[in-house]
Amino acid sequence: MADDWANSGSGEVAGVDLHVELTGAGGLRAQLMSALRDAIRSGRLAPGTRLPPYRGLAADLGIARNTVAAAYAELVEEGWLTARQGSGTRVAQRAAPAPIRHRVDPVRPGPQRVLHDLQPSSPNAAAFPRSDWATSTRRALASAPHDAFGVGDPRGRPELRDAVAEYLSRARGVRAEPDRILICAGFAHGLQLLTQVLDGPIAMEAYGLDFHRNTVHANGIDTIPISVDGHGAVVDELRATAARAVVLTPAHQYPTGGPLNPERRATVVDWVRSTGGLLIEDDYDGEFRYDREPIGALQGLDPDRIAYLGSVSKSLSPALRLGWMVLPDALIDTVLAAKGSRELWVSVVTQLALADFLRTGAYDRHLRRSRATHRRRRALLVHTLAERAPHVRVSGIAAGLHAVLELPPGTEKSTVRAARRLGLALDGLHRYRHPATTMPDRDGLVIGYGTPADHAFAPALDALCQALPSP
Amino acid sequence: MADDWANSGSGEVAGVDLHVELTGAGGLRAQLMSALRDAIRSGRLAPGTRLPPYRGLAADLGIARNTVAAAYAELVEEGWLTARQGSGTRVAQRAAPAPIRHRVDPVRPGPQRVLHDLQPSSPNAAAFPRSDWATSTRRALASAPHDAFGVGDPRGRPELRDAVAEYLSRARGVRAEPDRILICAGFAHGLQLLTQVLDGPIAMEAYGLDFHRNTVHANGIDTIPISVDGHGAVVDELRATAARAVVLTPAHQYPTGGPLNPERRATVVDWVRSTGGLLIEDDYDGEFRYDREPIGALQGLDPDRIAYLGSVSKSLSPALRLGWMVLPDALIDTVLAAKGSRELWVSVVTQLALADFLRTGAYDRHLRRSRATHRRRRALLVHTLAERAPHVRVSGIAAGLHAVLELPPGTEKSTVRAARRLGLALDGLHRYRHPATTMPDRDGLVIGYGTPADHAFAPALDALCQALPSP
Repeated sequence: MADDWANSGSGEVAGVDLHVELTGAGGLRAQLMSALRDAIRSGRLAPGTRLPPYRGLAADLGIARNTVAAAYAELVEEGWLTARQGSGTRVAQRAAPAPIRHRVDPVRPGPQRVLHDLQPSSPNAAAFPRSDWATSTRRALASAPHDAFGVGDPRGRPELRDAVAEYLSRARGVRAEPDRILICAGFAHGLQLLTQVLDGPIAMEAYGLDFHRNTVHANGIDTIPISVDGHGAVVDELRATAARAVVLTPAHQYPTGGPLNPERRATVVDWVRSTGGLLIEDDYDGEFRYDREPIGALQGLDPDRIAYLGSVSKSLSPALRLGWMVLPDALIDTVLAAKGSRELWVSVVTQLALADFLRTGAYDRHLRRSRATHRRRRALLVHTLAERAPHVRVSGIAAGLHAVLELPPGTEKSTVRAARRLGLALDGLHRYRHPATTMPDRDGLVIGYGTPADHAFAPALDALCQALPSP
Repeated sequence: MADDWANSGSGEVAGVDLHVELTGAGGLRAQLMSALRDAIRSGRLAPGTRLPPYRGLAADLGIARNTVAAAYAELVEEGWLTARQGSGTRVAQRAAPAPIRHRVDPVRPGPQRVLHDLQPSSPNAAAFPRSDWATSTRRALASAPHDAFGVGDPRGRPELRDAVAEYLSRARGVRAEPDRILICAGFAHGLQLLTQVLDGPIAMEAYGLDFHRNTVHANGIDTIPISVDGHGAVVDELRATAARAVVLTPAHQYPTGGPLNPERRATVVDWVRSTGGLLIEDDYDGEFRYDREPIGALQGLDPDRIAYLGSVSKSLSPALRLGWMVLPDALIDTVLAAKGSRELWVSVVTQLALADFLRTGAYDRHLRRSRATHRRRRALLVHTLAERAPHVRVSGIAAGLHAVLELPPGTEKSTVRAARRLGLALDGLHRYRHPATTMPDRDGLVIGYGTPADHAFAPALDALCQALPSP
């Protein structure tokens, strides 16, 4: 056996047949160490076993004595072997492993093949501007000062804060001086930071992401639902609550789709002013409006009372993990303290690349392309439903990357099940509902028309029409 | 006045002289909106003020009536203006702003100009392999599957987990199957996640980063100091504690510089086995050993009881915010649950770039260069001190990116002050000391010889020698 490999050998060692094979990466010493570790781990070399002398194993393996000696010495250092004067090199004695609880996979739904994906999660991943992003990355890497690669400023890179300030003030009407901007890893990260510095319950829209509610609850803060209708959140309800802060999606209520109307905009600004409260504005898709110019952010009405949060998750990709907060002056230091002086969550290379992407106009170009695509897709969704399922209404404004389809009462669950059988992934409206809301129940679907690749969109719509309940 | 600009104008409006200047980015409508917002914000247009009719302002500004109408309409939508039949367009009435607590800057030490930086924070930021990283990014962007840009897997990209598994098993002797690897934003992020799923106090080395201790405390978990000496942590002390987990830096105790010796390696493995505890191995600079081959990670001795954590913070840059955890099977699901299914903290583009960087050998090449630089720097530090300050001993092994200088008792504070006067930033040893340890007090400096740029290293050493106490 031993002759089958140039560098393998075996020897009778204290009654144990030690067979060692030298393969894999690294030099001969590393290979020998790896083989010995494996033999010990597998039990082939039991604790206390005496290893062959250097000379013998070296000869068997056709390698230098020094290599064997070095491998033994390192395994002694690492704790695999012990070496004592007079008793040679032995496998270390160690307590028997305590029985460990083996990993039990939680019960998960059986694997369901997803053929069509209309879940409202992200823009079309196939449309990520790879080449432009690579160009921005290269340019940013070439021009960054050295200190960019040291321990960073938790506020984020100044290049990016400048570029974001310029963009937000131009495109979203945000009052955004660079020194009131904090870069974060996305909306949820920003909400987590704000939750850490706020006291008392936070009002949230009765329909929204459970993930956001959970982020608040995880910090020991309660959430209070406020109703939503076709004009966004019913902010008059705030007065009757104990909330000191409210999270809103004013440009496009998520997911039901109404924009906060002008009266309610005024009402909520009055509320934060008279109560000394805080409005957290989640501007997750403010750039995407298809029937008119986007409405500017609420934040401009009172930058001292409104924290504005946005990200590239809908405009570019959630995979970049990059967002921003524009904070009232009075909150900056406390939120920075919560963020931690040593830690910054967002890759600086990604920050610098986005700064370049914004500054060179690549972001605006990408948004224009993306807006055109999503406008077409929404129109196709509306048109298809009007033809094939006229009893299903698309509610909300022509905006964003998703739409809500209103279903006849009591049909949501069966529709989601029917979709699943067709391999179509989509969300029912119920999973967005705040458990404590007293709003009348609604049946519906939240359709992410941005998600599929171009070629996959028409087939996904077709599957959707098949899954919908008959009139 | 009105004629000074092609697009500016003024009019007598309800007793208010409205002067508007159209400048800045965007079309005329956006410029007009921006100017009106500014006028309202500044108080020049008071609440209730009636705005000029479209026709008048359009004529004054030399722009189309429709443009003024559109700007007014959008500002109504945004809540700045109100429009009522018969009473025209007016500035919205809003409650007066409540007085807000103005930002009070916490007392910070006066600005001290840093001329030389020997703080142990990061590798030489000037040595970041920008061009290779840009190449890896471009290649990764070109070859990634589309789904990489959608909502990601919180475990991290499979490409990166494969590459990290291969690297860790080859270079650090870690038992690292890809499905036991979780990508995270660095050691502190990994520690934070583990702290969330562990019960009871965690033992930590009596000298270490206060930032790591604070990360544990922030989750409501106590830390128990265990002493350190020239052979690393005195792990025999673990038996007398109530700790169920211990954080160690076995390859190179941070910051005092001893490696955990073989007997202690065996002792701590026995401890975790007999108590059912967990060892958290912080392998922050295991690749950097200058006197011999690096000692393999402890984790290989019992992958079911040892969580191995590492990052690129010392090898490449802390600005990438990228690290990994190799977890015992039994912990994977709970740590993943703590990480959250919707959130991943690490930019996918950075993950894919590192996967390419590892796979193509660029990481190994960079490590070789970096190791040679740091070996030379450490030798120069030792040599310079031997010549100019022979009474100051450099303790610890020839490894890593930092060294501890032992100072005569009672001289640390004055030395740090003397350094500060010379514009030299460095850390005293006391700030690393666990407040509850009963170890004898030690005076010393923690010198990050990796931090300065090449040209800045000799002058920094010179300043250091000037700051040191005389014999």
